[in-house]
Amino acid sequence: MRVAIVGATGAVGHELMSVLEKSSLKFDELLLFASPRSAGNRLMFRGQELIVQATPEGAIDADVILASAGGAISKEKAAAWVAGGAVVIDNSSAFRYDPEVPLVVPEVNGEAALHHKGIIANPNCTTAVAVLAVAPIHRKYGVKRMIVSTYQATSGAGQKGMDELLEQTHMVLHGKEAGNEVFAHPIPFNVIPHIDAFQDNGYTKEEMKVVWETRKILGDDSLKISCTAVRIPTLRTHSEAITLELERPATPDAVRELLSHSAGVEVRDDPEGKLYPMPLTASGKYDVEVGRIRESLVFDGGIDLFVAGDQLLKGAALNAVQIAEYLQEQGALKGKARA
Amino acid sequence: MRVAIVGATGAVGHELMSVLEKSSLKFDELLLFASPRSAGNRLMFRGQELIVQATPEGAIDADVILASAGGAISKEKAAAWVAGGAVVIDNSSAFRYDPEVPLVVPEVNGEAALHHKGIIANPNCTTAVAVLAVAPIHRKYGVKRMIVSTYQATSGAGQKGMDELLEQTHMVLHGKEAGNEVFAHPIPFNVIPHIDAFQDNGYTKEEMKVVWETRKILGDDSLKISCTAVRIPTLRTHSEAITLELERPATPDAVRELLSHSAGVEVRDDPEGKLYPMPLTASGKYDVEVGRIRESLVFDGGIDLFVAGDQLLKGAALNAVQIAEYLQEQGALKGKARA
Repeated sequence: MRVAIVGATGAVGHELMSVLEKSSLKFDELLLFASPRSAGNRLMFRGQELIVQATPEGAIDADVILASAGGAISKEKAAAWVAGGAVVIDNSSAFRYDPEVPLVVPEVNGEAALHHKGIIANPNCTTAVAVLAVAPIHRKYGVKRMIVSTYQATSGAGQKGMDELLEQTHMVLHGKEAGNEVFAHPIPFNVIPHIDAFQDNGYTKEEMKVVWETRKILGDDSLKISCTAVRIPTLRTHSEAITLELERPATPDAVRELLSHSAGVEVRDDPEGKLYPMPLTASGKYDVEVGRIRESLVFDGGIDLFVAGDQLLKGAALNAVQIAEYLQEQGALKGKARA
Repeated sequence: MRVAIVGATGAVGHELMSVLEKSSLKFDELLLFASPRSAGNRLMFRGQELIVQATPEGAIDADVILASAGGAISKEKAAAWVAGGAVVIDNSSAFRYDPEVPLVVPEVNGEAALHHKGIIANPNCTTAVAVLAVAPIHRKYGVKRMIVSTYQATSGAGQKGMDELLEQTHMVLHGKEAGNEVFAHPIPFNVIPHIDAFQDNGYTKEEMKVVWETRKILGDDSLKISCTAVRIPTLRTHSEAITLELERPATPDAVRELLSHSAGVEVRDDPEGKLYPMPLTASGKYDVEVGRIRESLVFDGGIDLFVAGDQLLKGAALNAVQIAEYLQEQGALKGKARA
């Protein structure tokens, strides 16, 4: 079986290779694609040097294509990739709201992936991180309202986002004024409540992605969700403060117990031991850290909690590879015979 | 009239002097006190060099004492200061929950200051910033539930907090590991959902301060408030994402109009022009920036908004001086005759 990465030289592409190296996914060959500018680059994979190729016009001779080169590329090329016989696991937002395209977090709604028509969408990073903690609670207690405030890392804007934070922070520490190209304003020591484009309702697209995608993944359009998405000067891992109103009252102990048996989640919740979710500890980790679990003071029997998840992993690369692993485990991914 | 600052060499003390320099408060003399370690320091005020004295054991011969040397000092000395005839405006949490002590944000409940018995408490910085935006909305529409997530600057822990962020960020940029003394964990490029001590209910004291103090300032104990207080790697200005359930439905336009006429608030809310509250623009500003005003997606007729306020100013020094100004304007602050 042959796996291809489109967008291999970006921040998520880098993580895709690292996750694939450790993955249980069985495949014979890895193909790397990127923009013509990056073609010819050499990247190491399992001790072998692979050469990055320019993404071709049409089909790619692979069984699984992990696409992470942005929505425009995915929109333009996915049909040809599917026609060529590949299953496309797309990290962009291009197809997430298409009712024909399953939007999948394997721990939550893996079975939805089995009903694909060639394309499976990987959710927005903020949603993927939140939904791992919220889905088990929703299943047991029924979430009615969900209020989310995010603390999003610069790597949400890719490698260039991290570079801008580091370079501009260096400027500020040397008494110079910070500039900005990637972000709407200088990011060092600042907070920017603006990620992706503003919509007519005053919310950003990033905020509405959390609303739309959480509903789609949980299969519940009645869920009321409000989100404030905020960029902060961190490198990787998105943190989120979440308040939940529940249909059936929960206790913090019961939620802690529930989440301690939930896949993809690490309960990190010992205030006395100063253990709670943080980018410092969650970065590079596959599991999403969940902590600060406490009874909500605004909803009787509701829950407040805090999550931190490496959005380059669970919010992107890891989730994409896990979808492929799930398909293979279910016998739904078969390599073509090749000469 | 004589004004004294206790804690003159700290971050808030520095801001107190700067605010007093530009203040309309009429006074003849400024006395500066700090710990014995800082005694002898010389600080400039309105072109004059003032010498910092060690805070004395007993009374201070001043008419107004602006106390910002921490709760322990205030608790120990306030009674003697009051006995000596001074009005104490205390920036610590020592007396905030004492029913005999008014907790005052002049734009919101200035008249409460007139009923003091010697001590007037200055609210917690996070509360002061939030309440300026929330109070006018509460008066007109009746807030039922308020969910707050904070993005708090390191200067909330004083000058040493800012120093630790700058020094440790420098370490990280030079490839070294960040350490921590002031904060519970290294703060550079990190997020720490832990400010002040944890309480039995799983909330931190910082979070409960927002609950207790907002209720006291608004004079409404039925208000349901939940807060997640988070330290982030910024230098000054606390930002807050706030979701409000209202008794009477509001529209974003009506709230924008209401707040544009509210004292202490600058409506900064033009998404297309990339105008919204940020530490970068709110730092050093007296008004609290309010923006991202939009209809809540979880409460019909409710409002989501975002605020950013320089917590060393409105959250501390500015508010304290404004209390003194208010008392003087009301004829409730008279200087003693002195030789």
